[in-house]
Amino acid sequence: MEKMKLKILYSDLKSDIDIIEKELEKALNSSSHLINDASLHLLQSGGKRIRPVFVLVSAKFGQYNIDKVKNIAVPLELIHMASLVHDDVIDNSDLRRGTHTVKAQWNNRVAMYTGDFIFARALEYVTSIENKRVHQILAKTMVEICNGEVIQIEDKFRKDQNLKDYFRRIKRKTALLIESSCELGAVVGGLDDKSIGHLRRFGYFVGMSYQIVDDILDFTATDKELGKPAGSDLLQGNITLPILLLKGNPTIDQFIDQASVGEVTESGRLEMLKVVRNSDSIKQSITISNQYLRKALKEVEALPNHPMKKKLRDIALFIGKRKF
Amino acid sequence: MEKMKLKILYSDLKSDIDIIEKELEKALNSSSHLINDASLHLLQSGGKRIRPVFVLVSAKFGQYNIDKVKNIAVPLELIHMASLVHDDVIDNSDLRRGTHTVKAQWNNRVAMYTGDFIFARALEYVTSIENKRVHQILAKTMVEICNGEVIQIEDKFRKDQNLKDYFRRIKRKTALLIESSCELGAVVGGLDDKSIGHLRRFGYFVGMSYQIVDDILDFTATDKELGKPAGSDLLQGNITLPILLLKGNPTIDQFIDQASVGEVTESGRLEMLKVVRNSDSIKQSITISNQYLRKALKEVEALPNHPMKKKLRDIALFIGKRKF
Repeated sequence: MEKMKLKILYSDLKSDIDIIEKELEKALNSSSHLINDASLHLLQSGGKRIRPVFVLVSAKFGQYNIDKVKNIAVPLELIHMASLVHDDVIDNSDLRRGTHTVKAQWNNRVAMYTGDFIFARALEYVTSIENKRVHQILAKTMVEICNGEVIQIEDKFRKDQNLKDYFRRIKRKTALLIESSCELGAVVGGLDDKSIGHLRRFGYFVGMSYQIVDDILDFTATDKELGKPAGSDLLQGNITLPILLLKGNPTIDQFIDQASVGEVTESGRLEMLKVVRNSDSIKQSITISNQYLRKALKEVEALPNHPMKKKLRDIALFIGKRKF
Repeated sequence: MEKMKLKILYSDLKSDIDIIEKELEKALNSSSHLINDASLHLLQSGGKRIRPVFVLVSAKFGQYNIDKVKNIAVPLELIHMASLVHDDVIDNSDLRRGTHTVKAQWNNRVAMYTGDFIFARALEYVTSIENKRVHQILAKTMVEICNGEVIQIEDKFRKDQNLKDYFRRIKRKTALLIESSCELGAVVGGLDDKSIGHLRRFGYFVGMSYQIVDDILDFTATDKELGKPAGSDLLQGNITLPILLLKGNPTIDQFIDQASVGEVTESGRLEMLKVVRNSDSIKQSITISNQYLRKALKEVEALPNHPMKKKLRDIALFIGKRKF
């Protein structure tokens, strides 16, 4: 259902998305078999290619040239892919001895270096762009994303954090790269600074809404829809919006304490989910997500008339209202 | 003793190395406490700053401007630092240069993201350089280094590898970044293509010698000198030159098999070290390292007359002859 909607949404961009898909394939080619296997896996698992799409659509407001635009769309998706690969690296500091350990570490090592390789490939792409502003935006974005990753670790299981901590975290985790996708598309399209600003902020607001919806779905969707157990975020210590809005709930507090020492039972997880699902915090989180979405749509309104405005709106609404 | 020699060698570059040291400190500053702690730790553990020194010395053959040169010397050292941090995740090695690694003190994920952060900071530096050639050399180098890291994993514990596999591996692991340091220093210094070529090849040959010496020292130096147990490379499955030259030795073969399943005993390690140290393979490895060193010195000879030629020679000889 959701995939279908996305397909319709992307239909008139299809030929350009196909070009980007081909470029991604080419970029992930390596002289290492292990990297090639890992990359193929990444490509086949799909992904919504939201960042490239935002680059394309933003650039279409100006002088659109797919050969120029792809040189920024491809590295942005590569950076996103690399960060996905690194997020999958598990912490095995307590696994040290025996055959399985060596193997597990190999997998981690391969994942880490595959991520590094993809980052480096992204750079290689960017070198073909002779616009200093593009390089600066991209480098700054990457620094902030990496900062955010470590801050996310610092904040794990921390019950004394507040909404500000959360928003700062999801900004770096998700909103920044979408913001930069829109901004860079606009820069490459040669838009004026005012329009670049609107698109940049649009990306930021959509990105915030996107991550909040993600954090809600982690509690409300089924294990099957998520492809992992619902509540995984909290299980791993990531304290997201629905939890922050439930602050002080004894069941949740106890769950966090148990999760922090790896002592969560299946019934404990189901109880936690019940508390979150039956609380007001999901509705409140949706309200906050919708506020960001409205701000995003306002930025679209402020843009000069253009057929692409409807596309931006549709994509934003798809992202902000998706069910999984 | 070695530190003393290095100090004398660097003495007339000291003020510029200090500038780079300050810049490295600045670059490693982050809004995350964990990253700051990790980075401070990295800075304090020192390192020979060989890559920046090669940039400086190479640039001195042309129009030398420290403000321009530092913008390439700093990112090269940052890339080296980032790869050290990631290597520590990989090898599960708790000690580097005798102090606890970032990974040992925190965990794999923090080390991985700290490495990512440092990579990103390197990029941020590079954006200030408006020379496409510089960007291309750097990006290509990074892609190849990452490729090499994964190939190194593929080759681990593989007894059927040959010298060619080894040389290809150390080229990517070490020689490439030193090659690029010399090349980029020469490019930023505005040298002619012929001189750039000599310096690039000089860097490559010195880099090969450097890594071979490193691989020899892993067997011949004491645990104290190494800051980790001698023989660690083979323990982790890295089959280096001295081992390749001992091909077929039953003690070594058995050691590799045991190491691959994590079943090496302390007496097994000492026995392996004895076999390597008492064999001809150390002497043969030194001969091969010296061949690279001679090739490096030949490239220096081919450069036009310049007071920096002596400096290049001295640094190369220091690197190729160092005791630990």
